[in-house]
Order: sequence, then C-alpha cells, then structure tokens
Amino acid sequence: MTTPAEFYDRHRELLDRAIDAAAARDYWSAYPESPSRSVYGEQAAPAGKQAFQALLGREFPIEVPGARTTVSSELSPYGIELDVRYPQGDPAALIAAARAATPQWRALEPQERAGVAAEILQRLNARIYELAHAVQHTCGQAFVMAFQAGGAHAQDRGLEAVAVALAETTRIPATASGSKPQRGGDPLRLEKTSTAVGRGVALVIGCNTFPTWNSYPGLFASLVTGNPVIVKPHPGAVLPLAITVQIARDVLTEAGLDPNLVTLAVEQRGEGIAATLATHPEVRIIDFTGSSEFGSWLEANARQAVVYTEKAGLNTVIVDSTDDYKGLLRNLAFSLSLYSGQMCTTPQNIFLPGTGIATDLGPKSPAEFGADLGAALDKLLGDPQRAAGTLGEIVNDGVRARIAEAGDLPGVLRSALPMVIRAAPSDEKTFTREWFGPISFLITTTSTAHSLELFRDTVRQHGALTALVHSTSPEVLADAREAALDAGVHLSENLTGGVFVNQTAAFSDLHGTGANPAATASLSDAAFVTGRFFTLQSRRHTS
Amino acid sequence: MTTPAEFYDRHRELLDRAIDAAAARDYWSAYPESPSRSVYGEQAAPAGKQAFQALLGREFPIEVPGARTTVSSELSPYGIELDVRYPQGDPAALIAAARAATPQWRALEPQERAGVAAEILQRLNARIYELAHAVQHTCGQAFVMAFQAGGAHAQDRGLEAVAVALAETTRIPATASGSKPQRGGDPLRLEKTSTAVGRGVALVIGCNTFPTWNSYPGLFASLVTGNPVIVKPHPGAVLPLAITVQIARDVLTEAGLDPNLVTLAVEQRGEGIAATLATHPEVRIIDFTGSSEFGSWLEANARQAVVYTEKAGLNTVIVDSTDDYKGLLRNLAFSLSLYSGQMCTTPQNIFLPGTGIATDLGPKSPAEFGADLGAALDKLLGDPQRAAGTLGEIVNDGVRARIAEAGDLPGVLRSALPMVIRAAPSDEKTFTREWFGPISFLITTTSTAHSLELFRDTVRQHGALTALVHSTSPEVLADAREAALDAGVHLSENLTGGVFVNQTAAFSDLHGTGANPAATASLSDAAFVTGRFFTLQSRRHTS
Repeated sequence: MTTPAEFYDRHRELLDRAIDAAAARDYWSAYPESPSRSVYGEQAAPAGKQAFQALLGREFPIEVPGARTTVSSELSPYGIELDVRYPQGDPAALIAAARAATPQWRALEPQERAGVAAEILQRLNARIYELAHAVQHTCGQAFVMAFQAGGAHAQDRGLEAVAVALAETTRIPATASGSKPQRGGDPLRLEKTSTAVGRGVALVIGCNTFPTWNSYPGLFASLVTGNPVIVKPHPGAVLPLAITVQIARDVLTEAGLDPNLVTLAVEQRGEGIAATLATHPEVRIIDFTGSSEFGSWLEANARQAVVYTEKAGLNTVIVDSTDDYKGLLRNLAFSLSLYSGQMCTTPQNIFLPGTGIATDLGPKSPAEFGADLGAALDKLLGDPQRAAGTLGEIVNDGVRARIAEAGDLPGVLRSALPMVIRAAPSDEKTFTREWFGPISFLITTTSTAHSLELFRDTVRQHGALTALVHSTSPEVLADAREAALDAGVHLSENLTGGVFVNQTAAFSDLHGTGANPAATASLSDAAFVTGRFFTLQSRRHTS
Repeated sequence: MTTPAEFYDRHRELLDRAIDAAAARDYWSAYPESPSRSVYGEQAAPAGKQAFQALLGREFPIEVPGARTTVSSELSPYGIELDVRYPQGDPAALIAAARAATPQWRALEPQERAGVAAEILQRLNARIYELAHAVQHTCGQAFVMAFQAGGAHAQDRGLEAVAVALAETTRIPATASGSKPQRGGDPLRLEKTSTAVGRGVALVIGCNTFPTWNSYPGLFASLVTGNPVIVKPHPGAVLPLAITVQIARDVLTEAGLDPNLVTLAVEQRGEGIAATLATHPEVRIIDFTGSSEFGSWLEANARQAVVYTEKAGLNTVIVDSTDDYKGLLRNLAFSLSLYSGQMCTTPQNIFLPGTGIATDLGPKSPAEFGADLGAALDKLLGDPQRAAGTLGEIVNDGVRARIAEAGDLPGVLRSALPMVIRAAPSDEKTFTREWFGPISFLITTTSTAHSLELFRDTVRQHGALTALVHSTSPEVLADAREAALDAGVHLSENLTGGVFVNQTAAFSDLHGTGANPAATASLSDAAFVTGRFFTLQSRRHTS
C-alpha cells in the first residue's frame, strides 16, 4: 500500500517540471523515445517482447464490472495470431461501478490524484516494449514508430494532460482568507475553501491507429480533474489500452482506491457500445478520436456531456518557393510515407501554382515537382527494409478500399503507396473529401494567393489538423500565417530537416485547435481540462 | 488618439494587481462601493444625476449598424417618465459590422485588448452616479444598491473577467523556442509563435434586474479574448447597457479601432431579436442571464455557439442550530428583503427540522422560528425609509403575478413582502418551482439529515446559485459541505453579521458553478474564458 500522497511525493519533482514545461512550451520530454539498450537497459527489449507474447491466445487478466462473456476482435496487420480475449462489461454495470468509485476520488487533493496518475505513467513507461509490440500488432505501425508514438510520445502527452489538469485544478487556491474593510466597523473576515469537483463519469473512445497517443490526454485529464474513466478501445486496437487500464487499476488498488475508477469497455465489432455509453445520462465527459461521421454524431447527440472530438480534415501543404528543394522533397516524402499516411496529420492536399515554384535548383513546374516528389518517395522507399520501417502496414479494410478507389481516379502520378494524384481546383469535390491513408493530391492553382485562398476556404469548411507552407518570401509567409489564423489551423513553415508536419511534441506543440471542424479541442491547453471539473466554494467567518 | 498599447501602459499596474487578486481569491476591489463625497468628490453626485436626467425624453446618442427606427421600451418602477429612444439595428447588419471589425482586434496583443477594456471600465467608473440612476430607474433597485451592485460591483466583476481573460490568453507564451536533442546530430531548433484567436461574434443577453452586473463578465471576457460583442439588453433595462456600449465605442474610436467591436441591439418587447441573433451561424459565443425557460432554449438551440447561461434555481437555507439566534434572524431577514428578493441569489427554501433547532436563546420550534423571522423582518422594514432603501421596487409584472399567486397558497405566515410561507416536504411540487421575487418557504423536515437530503436532491435536479447552512455542529457542517459538493452549489456557513448569502465579491467569491442546472458557468474562473478563444501556433526552424 502506497497512499496517493506518497505517490505525489514520489513524483512531485517530475510533476513540477512538467507544469513548468507545459507553461513554457519549449522542448521537454519525460520519457526517452529511443528503444536503445543504453537507455532502457539490456533486458528491457527481450523482456517486453516476452511479456507481449505471453498475452497472446489467452483471456486478458483484468476485472471488468458486469462481465459475463469475453470478446476477441483484433487482427494483426502483420498477420500474427493475436486471439486475446477480453471480458466484456455491461454498460449499466460499468457506469454504476464508475459512480460508486467517485466519492473517495473526489475527496483526494488534486495533487494526490496527479501523484496516482504519474505512477500509472511511470509503470506504462516501464512496460514500453510490451506496449510497443501491442501497438505494432494492432495498428500496423513499424516497431520503432510504435515504440515512439505509441509509447514514449503517448506517455509524454499523458503527462502533459496531468500537468495541465493539476495546474488548472489548483489555480484557485484550496483555502483563502480575506478581510473586507467596513466603514465605521471591524473588517469582515472570511475564510474560503475551494474544491475542484469532477463533472461526472468520463468516457474515452479510442481509435484504431493511435490507441494510446490519442487516448491518454483525455484519460489523464479526466482522471486528474476528479472523474472516473471508462476506456472504450476500437475493436481493432484493444490490447494497448487493456494494458493501460490494467496498470491503472493496479496502481489504484495499491493506493487503497477503488480500481473501478478506470475500467475497460470492449465490444464485438459493430455492437455500438460507444453510442450506448456516450448517450447515457450519467456520462458527462467524452473524448473521441476517429471518423468525422461518428464524431459529429457524438457532438450532436451526446448532449448531456462535454464532447472533445478529434476527427479528420484536409491537411494542406502550400508550396510557393524554397531555398532547399531537396530538403523540401525529402521532408515531404517522409511525411507522406510515415505509417503509410495513416496519421490524422498526414498531408492530403498539396497546392502549388501552375506557373511553377522558384527553388535553389532553378524554377520547377508542377509536372517537374510531381516527378521530383515521386523520385524522392522512390528513393526513401527503395530499400525494402527502410520502406517497411517507414510505411508499416495498412491498418484496416477502410483504408484499403480508399486506396482502390483512388487508383481509379484520373491523374494518378504515383500508383505505388503513398499515392500522388494530380488535380485541379475544379476537382474540389474530390480533394475536399477526406482520403485517410496514403493518398495525396497535387493541386495546381493560378498563384500562391490562389493556393492560400483555397487553403483558407477548404480548411474553414472541412477542417484540418496540420498545414505546411514553403516559401522564401517573408510576405508570403506572413500571408500564410494570416490564412492559417483564418482557417484555424496550426502552421509549420519551411520544414526541410528532421521536423515533420505530421509530428507534434507534447509540452511544446499543441495538437488540434478547436477552431476548425477537424477537432473541438487542443492537446493540451487549459480549455482541454477546464470543462472537466467545477470549482465549488464554501465560506465562513473567522475571528 | 491613444493607442491600445498606451492604454495598456496606463492600466498595467491595475491589471497586474487584478490578475494577482483573481488568483489569490482573497478580498480585493478596484472600484469603491461607497457613494460618498469623500470617495468620489463633491461634484460627482449632482453631476451624475444631471447627466442621467439629460438622457431622458430623447434619442440616445449612439450609432447602431443598420438602424432605421428607434425603440423606447423602458418603464421606471419608480414611476418617473424615461422615454429614452434607442436606434434599433438590424441583426444581419449588426453581425456584418461585428465581423468587419474583427481582424484589427485579432491583430492586437492580448495586453492591448486588456488595456482598452481597462480604459472602458475606468470611464464606466467615472460615470458611476449616472449609471446608478439608470439602474435604479430601470430595475427598481434603491439608489445605494444600484450604485453598488450596478456600479462598483459590476465594474469589479468586469475587471475580474478582464484579468482572467488576460491571464488565460497569455498562459501559453506568444513566442517560445526550444531545441530537441538528436542522437548523433545537431539538435533540432524551432521557434514557435502562439496567437490567441477569438471564437467569433459574441452575443451578451442582459437581464431586467442586474443589467450591468450580469452582463459585464461576458462582455469583457469575450472582448479581451479577441471577439466583437453585440450587447442585447432586456427591453426593460436598456439604459445602463446603452451607456456602457457608448463608453466602449468612445474608447475604441479613441484607440483608432472600429467602434463596431461593441454594438447595441435593442428591440420592441416580444420581438425575439435575441433568438434571431443567438441562432445566427456567425454568432459563436452567447452569455445569457434570465429565465430558465429561455436559457434552456438557448442551450438546446444555439448549437453553433458556446453558451454561458445563468438561469434560476432553488436557493436553499438549512437551519440546524446556532449560537447567535438574533444574528441569524437579522442576517436572513436582510437577505430575504434586499431588492425585494429579486436577486438570483435570494434564498427561497428554508429547511428546518420539525423537532426545532438549538440556539443560544434556547430551543426554537418551527412555529417559533417562523414568528421570530417575521418579527425580524418587521423590525428591519419597520422604518419606511429604511424599508424603501432595502426593498426597492418590484421590477415587473411577472414578479407581481407570482406574489399574487403565492398569496393564495395555504400556509402563508407573512403576507407582507417579503412573504414567508409554511410548507412540508409533501409540498415539493410547490417549493421546487422557482418563485423569483420576495417569496420564501419555511419547510419542516424530520431532521437535519432529511433537510440535507432534500437540499441535495432538489438542487441537483432544479439548480441553485446559493446555499446557506446554520449549525454549531462540526459534523453537520461537514455533512453540509459534502451535500453542497454533491448538489454542485457554493455554500455559506453561519452568516450572522455583515456578509449575506446573496452577495458575492468579485476576485474572491465565484458566482454560479456550472455544476447544477442553475448555470453553465462560474463568474469568473478559467473555464468561463477558455472556451472563448483558440490558441493557434506556427513554427519554423531557427539556426
């Protein structure tokens, strides 16, 4: 038994550092992203692999309220047999268990809740290899990417949410006292107590491609602000979140708390348990990552809850000019290829003027740019091993169907993955659809001003999570920044090196803005946590 | 011409102090609440009265986009002839003007916007007497109360919102730079810019009873977070907000900004312009104070906007025991009487056990308590001048109708205003209605535990803005605090002196919680402002 206060003491320094980093927004990371032996030790890799393999073909060891059957719904994109069976809870029992666990959680100080959360994150980090295998074999990410995005970066995003939640729940001091001067009398002295109280049962709905990275912010933000959390994974990517919930429950139990503060809610594919849970009157907070269709449905129908969604959009690149043409191509080729374009941040629409672009290697027409981008992709992916490490595998049939559909479009410049398709502004109906997967459009405009206009209009209407501009002109960059503010999207400028538009770093880059239809929240600013709790005061006279 | 930066420099010290005070939550006030000559000077009172009188019987001097006619809709509860005519704008023109004014407002630093807001507040304070007369003669508040609640306290609440908005829009630094270490290479150096961008056109819908106090938080929070604001007063209380908008427009013009960042939207009674504006796709933020019916309608129908409502509820007093019976009665009598109970914070339901309460003057049965409360009210209101200064006037026919209806109820203990009516738990259907006005119920329960149970259940279901407990027992106080956390309402304990349950102080007490149906927001915590803007980043390499 370790009390929540002891967990806080154990992690206090880390939490203080994380709060500072989240405020400063310079670069900081708590969990090393390198799967190197020199970082995690000699035994970590084989032990993690063994732990992962020991989970396969069995019932996953976790208690779930109301469970009477088990469910097995995962298929590895790498083709290995998973056959992990998870106890399937009953929605009413899950919610009742969450509510029953709430009072003792509310009674803790925010610091104590953050201490428990930090301990959960530390244990997730200790099992990072096991988690990486679980992510790889449910999402189709190459191992190193699964280790980084699904392991260290997800844990950093989780800690960022803990830090922001702790900062916001302690912003109004727990106790305050003050005197109001009275004309012709003694001052009125009052003592005030402020308590951050969670909104209610929280539901986190995971996605197929980034089950941990996209779920940890909501999970930890809701938890630290005083709410019990029901974690509902995508049927295709249960294992990484099952391990997560298992660890959370272990820590809660060790802290003398009810483990049902964090529960797992699985389903057979197509059962629709997410909709059932999301519209339950006692579910008051929802975090969702996934399709625009279900995200918009949640926003419209889960009216009893605050709903944080990350959906999809038209990630855009505006190419105007560059002083590092090769760097531009190399950088963009990697962004299009990474995880076969199955990131919510992968560029889809690349705008460039029909008159071509100025580069350090001379002017380039759209046709030349298309050919050069194709060559850069070929070069990046020419080595089969590097290609496998970059592309990973296609995650599901939905992506495969879109790839097939895109292959039938006119203007295919590159039919291998990632596909590149030539388009004109008149093809707006095509390129304003979201083509989640390794499918991008090279769209020829009349000018960079026209590109920016299309960028602004399409993103305002359809949303985007990322935008990238390449220009050597300070005026064009200034215009692009204004257009990005209008469109409500974060902007990267002239990325030609080791930073990629589809990657954001916790404690430094926000992810999503809330300002366009692609997302209603930003990971993780204050707005992402302040809706999850209320501050209740009591006051009394003191002498 | 004074630039926004110059206004910020002028008010920087005040703003820094206000940010500190809003964080510390001890007692602080920027605007003196005493209408004394020694505070505001010899000439302020007569000059303010003259300025007010000069407004009567004329067209109010203000420009309104799209105005072609004027509207006069106010009746003084004190019976004087007002006949102020206001230009009536067109909803589409108001919204178009607001949007056109936005880009230059977005381009300012948050500090510059806060500087402009602080200047507006300073000029409101300089016209506090004029505003007090305007509040008195539209709301029916006695002059001193109008001066305090409608003048100084409203200005303090406005400044509090400015402070919280400035703190939140600058929480993520405008620029940050950081290096990410690279294994076997130079670190990746990035520079990042963060910009707080307003959500869009904001609408503030004022109420009849506290047009300034309840409107200033939303008005200033939206403005400082980068949004243009359309102010739509209640038809019965236009003048205080017309003066406010006039001052805001003067300051904006002097700062070289488009005055249409703040506009006035009046209507003939019953025209429904609030609903038209509130459901316009370009209106993205709504602040509303008023009836539960229209507030709930807004929450359900203004889906394109974030909606902050303050509606109505069942403000509750739980009487268990006291060591200052006379103080309890005096304090409660004043709370029931102030502004004839026409505060959203006036106690409605008073629970006490049928077995009576222990006091320093011996045990008191419910019948004795009722008689003693009546006597305390008679004593407070026995002197006609003091009665007039406390009660003010009935604001409108709605309150008059409820008073008439309450008079026909069984169990009327005191038929003079404020009315006190005896009730039992079986009368729940009656006392769980909201009786806004000078109508309270004395409800006999089986025990204090029963009182707390009723408190918890009725407030969870119907909402409340205030709660008060009287007890000498630490256990009962602890139970009451838990019940208040369950009910989601702020709690006052054992108020027997000069602090009243129906008054909250800016920079110290929050008003409303969001945690029960009476309100979706709290004046003014971080959650009240973080939904009004987005933080957009751009990033680029630095060498």
